[in-house]
Amino acid sequence: MKRLIILLAGLVLLTAYLPADEGMFAMNELDRLDAAKLKSMGLEITMGDVTDRVARAVLDLGGGSGSFVSPDGLIVTNHHVAYRAIQYNSTGENNYIVEGFYAPTRDKELPAPGYTAGVLLGWEDVTQQVIGSLTAVMTDEERFQTMENAQKRLQKEVEAKEPNVYTEIAAMYQGKYYLLFRYLRLRDIRLVYAPPDAVGEFGGDIDNFEWPRHTGDFSFMRAYVGPDGRPADYAPENVPYHPEHYLNVSRRSLAENDFTMVIGYPGSTDRYLTSGQIRVLLERELPLKIRLFRDIVALLEDIGRADPEKAVRVASLAKGLNNAIKKYEGDFQGLTRDDVITRFSRRDVTVQEWISGQPARQHDAGLIADLNRINDQLAAKLELRTILGYLLRFVNTLDAGRTISRWAQEKTKPDLERDPAYMDRNIPELKNDLQTMQRNLLSEKDLKLMVFSLQKLRALPAAQRSAVVQKWFGDMTHEEMVVRLDAMISGTGLLDADTRLKYFDLPAGELAEVDDPLLAFAGELGVELKQLRDEADTLNAALQRLQPRFIDLLHAYSRNELYPDANSTMRLTYGKVTGYAKDGVTFTPFTTLDGAIAKERGTRPFANPPRLIQLYRAGEFGDYAEPNLGHRVPLNFLSDVDTTGGNSGSPTLNGKGELIGLLFDGNFESISSDYFYNPALTRSIVVDARYMLYILDKFSHATALLEEMTIVR
Amino acid sequence: MKRLIILLAGLVLLTAYLPADEGMFAMNELDRLDAAKLKSMGLEITMGDVTDRVARAVLDLGGGSGSFVSPDGLIVTNHHVAYRAIQYNSTGENNYIVEGFYAPTRDKELPAPGYTAGVLLGWEDVTQQVIGSLTAVMTDEERFQTMENAQKRLQKEVEAKEPNVYTEIAAMYQGKYYLLFRYLRLRDIRLVYAPPDAVGEFGGDIDNFEWPRHTGDFSFMRAYVGPDGRPADYAPENVPYHPEHYLNVSRRSLAENDFTMVIGYPGSTDRYLTSGQIRVLLERELPLKIRLFRDIVALLEDIGRADPEKAVRVASLAKGLNNAIKKYEGDFQGLTRDDVITRFSRRDVTVQEWISGQPARQHDAGLIADLNRINDQLAAKLELRTILGYLLRFVNTLDAGRTISRWAQEKTKPDLERDPAYMDRNIPELKNDLQTMQRNLLSEKDLKLMVFSLQKLRALPAAQRSAVVQKWFGDMTHEEMVVRLDAMISGTGLLDADTRLKYFDLPAGELAEVDDPLLAFAGELGVELKQLRDEADTLNAALQRLQPRFIDLLHAYSRNELYPDANSTMRLTYGKVTGYAKDGVTFTPFTTLDGAIAKERGTRPFANPPRLIQLYRAGEFGDYAEPNLGHRVPLNFLSDVDTTGGNSGSPTLNGKGELIGLLFDGNFESISSDYFYNPALTRSIVVDARYMLYILDKFSHATALLEEMTIVR
Repeated sequence: MKRLIILLAGLVLLTAYLPADEGMFAMNELDRLDAAKLKSMGLEITMGDVTDRVARAVLDLGGGSGSFVSPDGLIVTNHHVAYRAIQYNSTGENNYIVEGFYAPTRDKELPAPGYTAGVLLGWEDVTQQVIGSLTAVMTDEERFQTMENAQKRLQKEVEAKEPNVYTEIAAMYQGKYYLLFRYLRLRDIRLVYAPPDAVGEFGGDIDNFEWPRHTGDFSFMRAYVGPDGRPADYAPENVPYHPEHYLNVSRRSLAENDFTMVIGYPGSTDRYLTSGQIRVLLERELPLKIRLFRDIVALLEDIGRADPEKAVRVASLAKGLNNAIKKYEGDFQGLTRDDVITRFSRRDVTVQEWISGQPARQHDAGLIADLNRINDQLAAKLELRTILGYLLRFVNTLDAGRTISRWAQEKTKPDLERDPAYMDRNIPELKNDLQTMQRNLLSEKDLKLMVFSLQKLRALPAAQRSAVVQKWFGDMTHEEMVVRLDAMISGTGLLDADTRLKYFDLPAGELAEVDDPLLAFAGELGVELKQLRDEADTLNAALQRLQPRFIDLLHAYSRNELYPDANSTMRLTYGKVTGYAKDGVTFTPFTTLDGAIAKERGTRPFANPPRLIQLYRAGEFGDYAEPNLGHRVPLNFLSDVDTTGGNSGSPTLNGKGELIGLLFDGNFESISSDYFYNPALTRSIVVDARYMLYILDKFSHATALLEEMTIVR
Repeated sequence: MKRLIILLAGLVLLTAYLPADEGMFAMNELDRLDAAKLKSMGLEITMGDVTDRVARAVLDLGGGSGSFVSPDGLIVTNHHVAYRAIQYNSTGENNYIVEGFYAPTRDKELPAPGYTAGVLLGWEDVTQQVIGSLTAVMTDEERFQTMENAQKRLQKEVEAKEPNVYTEIAAMYQGKYYLLFRYLRLRDIRLVYAPPDAVGEFGGDIDNFEWPRHTGDFSFMRAYVGPDGRPADYAPENVPYHPEHYLNVSRRSLAENDFTMVIGYPGSTDRYLTSGQIRVLLERELPLKIRLFRDIVALLEDIGRADPEKAVRVASLAKGLNNAIKKYEGDFQGLTRDDVITRFSRRDVTVQEWISGQPARQHDAGLIADLNRINDQLAAKLELRTILGYLLRFVNTLDAGRTISRWAQEKTKPDLERDPAYMDRNIPELKNDLQTMQRNLLSEKDLKLMVFSLQKLRALPAAQRSAVVQKWFGDMTHEEMVVRLDAMISGTGLLDADTRLKYFDLPAGELAEVDDPLLAFAGELGVELKQLRDEADTLNAALQRLQPRFIDLLHAYSRNELYPDANSTMRLTYGKVTGYAKDGVTFTPFTTLDGAIAKERGTRPFANPPRLIQLYRAGEFGDYAEPNLGHRVPLNFLSDVDTTGGNSGSPTLNGKGELIGLLFDGNFESISSDYFYNPALTRSIVVDARYMLYILDKFSHATALLEEMTIVR
């Protein structure tokens, strides 16, 4: 979780038991919320208002969230969500990353290729269509295939009827029921405003997941449609989209314990795990990944140290891995801190005892044991599957070779029978990836990563030996293997973008004729990994069959109202503005511009823009200085709302449904809330709307934007 | 400043202007303190009690402080002050560092060679003796020599009369007046108790200078004397020393804002600097040292990475440098944070204006300008002097060669005319150093450090070129220099301890005959550095002549009561138990055992002893759990007392003069208080006496110690 954007998706594991005030509530289940409690906490509008008006201004930006804040399609989201668009438009001359960007008129707004905004149109229960054809005699593999095919068919049907609509099918409670969500996908998104990264990324990776925080993590974009008002690709003649609903922006005062509510697209949580599952996660999966990633980062830094040009090419992977290490460390430390293994073990024992006293629950007597057993089977090849997966992902040439080989096979099948990633609608993206990977390509990096990974793979116990690695290098010494890999990488066409695209277009027969050992090796590894993942999918299908029952069991046992794990569908979470405490320290819920100035060190990531320092020194706070914050300008605040990766850019709302800020991160202690929510420590970090307005007003003089929005006091 | 022990002494610079409640007050000036104010803060005993009784239990442990806590010479001090003694007695079999140590009976107490305890007997004003022979026509160099000689003579006189007494002469207010301090030096010190380092060093370097803190940084030693009751070297038949005064240990409750008082031996501060002086410090000296040390640490880590055996030999230097980097970073960040250049510049301008309105102050009209000018002269060769100094200090063979060559010259002079470091009384220590340096000796390290430093020296501008380096390597390329240095280090006898000691004993003439180029090079560098330092001493003598006048000027201008800079003489500072706040966070003043358990990670430095975890889990808190701390066991606390390196182990006292804890560190924000005290952020960190008692009682069952001390409730 990099400031709550979805970056690295791990192995999807499963399911936990529910304490007090947590919850990412599904939009179709909001009627279960306690209206009286919400009202007493400070919600002033009805839940109907929330769903019919407020939530309809919220956008799925693909990995992040956003919201409309004007009738002309103005979107506000995080700086780090809009970052690729800022980067895309930056040149040596106009470095919008460093300088910031502001389009005072519409014609100055810049294209943001690759961005789409999903406006949720509605949802329907499609459980019968998804599971209707399942039979009791099916194997887990057959069940999985049957359900996958049913879903693909359904989506294709709906999308064929409504050309501008995109669908997603989501398993709620891991498959207790299925919903099909329909979105209007707006495809011409433009960049309107970004602060300098000295504001938008202030604190950088050092402050990532940390509080106190002083990051102005916001940007503005705008959705455009064709002159006919329908979604269209970028074209100069396109016109702003007019959403039915948009949010007002609040400049009202905000205080500790004030009601807050967040609507957005959280990516994934696994809160209903058994103790056996959490044990595999904590004792094997997390340590494995942390160790691997640390070693790989050391290897990449070693490459970069020698040569600044190489340093650039390894930087992005190293940064991503460092972020993942912090995420996994947060998981590890948090789960250890909360002693979740003991906690879940006790719960599982108690649930098991409870079952034995419930005649009507005897069908669940073996459920926990079954889940643990299947999970153990899944874990049997965890190391092999993980290392092989990273090998094919981080070594760009192998990644390309695997995709090319796989596509040669898949292209012979009808669209509907393919692996979803290779369906026609996804081919342009695959080709684009093969093209753009050139930016980070470095044969030395690929060679060293291969040597490292193959060494790890060769050292695994016999039960987890890779047959392909055995076949290619089984009889070689380490030194011989290195020589061979060196020759393979030196001779491969995969280092060249044109060759990759040429390979991609070849039919299977011709591709097989190509004399490129690295391509062949990549293809074989791809097949092996696919087999491993298919085996895992089968086991996951078995888990999926049992998980809804386990959640149901927890529900029956605990009598708590549960909520479905996050699955990239729209969710609402509520809470209050509040800090947290640890031994010897109390984290108070507001930061101010004073704190950003106090962190000033003259060098990144703690260098404020000089003009902001001047404004501060001159006391030019306008009327943004808040009496209840010692007459300081508010910057970030904490809330105990329940969020995760994907919530980046989510509107944070007050009791009137007005925008009071944008969610952009969680504290380090919150990371493990993906598995277990600790109400005392889990906090989300929000950039205050009043800081956004202050920067727009006093720093950027972005008058047009201030006038376009409805700002309420 | 490593947890307030004196480790690295920098260039001694000078003098600042005084805000509110700060102050390390000299014992001879305590009558100036505001008794009514102290009483209202919570001091219940008289200042006479403090000086005549409490302060006389306080000990100078050489770089750290301690205090007597029993009539049988039991001393309490920090674990990190006693560390060398714990290390000295540890073996593979009995690893007291890891296991901790407890001598239940006196015969089990272990020798602590190298340790002495200084009991302050009294002081007298010797200003006339020191400056009496100065004349108006003397050059600064003559002044400096005259004063140095007078001091050496005085000390020798007094020490000759009282054989067990050791003296120190201290310039108060940089020489406004001089005091001669007389100490009884106890030379047989033994180790009595140390907790496992998992308690005594919990948090290690990561938590160094940090709050919240959870370090049980305490140990017990005992002072022994000969059977005749006089100070003696270690001998089995020695008997415990019976001090006239010792401290009672408090188990009373302690709360925020309670009065605290610390008596100890702070090493050095420079609070009366001009703006010109602080500018050179902040803009040149600190960045230079931070950069150099970072590069050297990288170089050492590089050596260590390849070979664990080498890693051990570079570890101690790297650790010291990392600690110094944190200290210099703290200075740099703190002085930047408090904008001290601007602050002092404004003050100097105002003072200058004030002078012009004071006819009686016209003799000071040029004072600030003079100080800045001399300081600039001192800074002219700052880089050369600094790099050369580190070269001769960090390269063990050069360090040894320099000492040997210098001693060959000094030994020809009468004792009193020598550089104080080479007076007879210091020769055993010099020889010991030549012996023990073998532990960290590594020719690869010396070679690489020489190459690095000489490269830096050769790159300095012409005005700072080293003549010796020019002579030896001036006409060589970098590669040729490396080859030559390699040959010099390969051929030197300085790598061998016996050879070093043999060289040390040779008369100058014979030493000159030895064919050892590295020895010759070291000798010449030593002479060059000595010249540079003599030049600096002359300038420092000029500064010293002006500084007392500057302090006097500040006093007259501000009408604040000032106090002398710390100079390793006994000081008293008072304040209260109190936290501090920054934007978004409040640091509360107490930590508890709960916090140490929450930091548990199973690996150093965050691994609690398993038995302590058991005690915690079993709730075995005896009656140490404090109602006002949520029934938790207190561990560390914060106070705004004004301390610095050398205060390590200082007794922290309540209003009754009872021991409530041991000072062992400051927060990161306090580091720059050596130059400027910021009352909002400067905090000292204390290990709570109640935690010491809890560990002695419940963890170590050290009943004899608990019975020996007078514990009051």
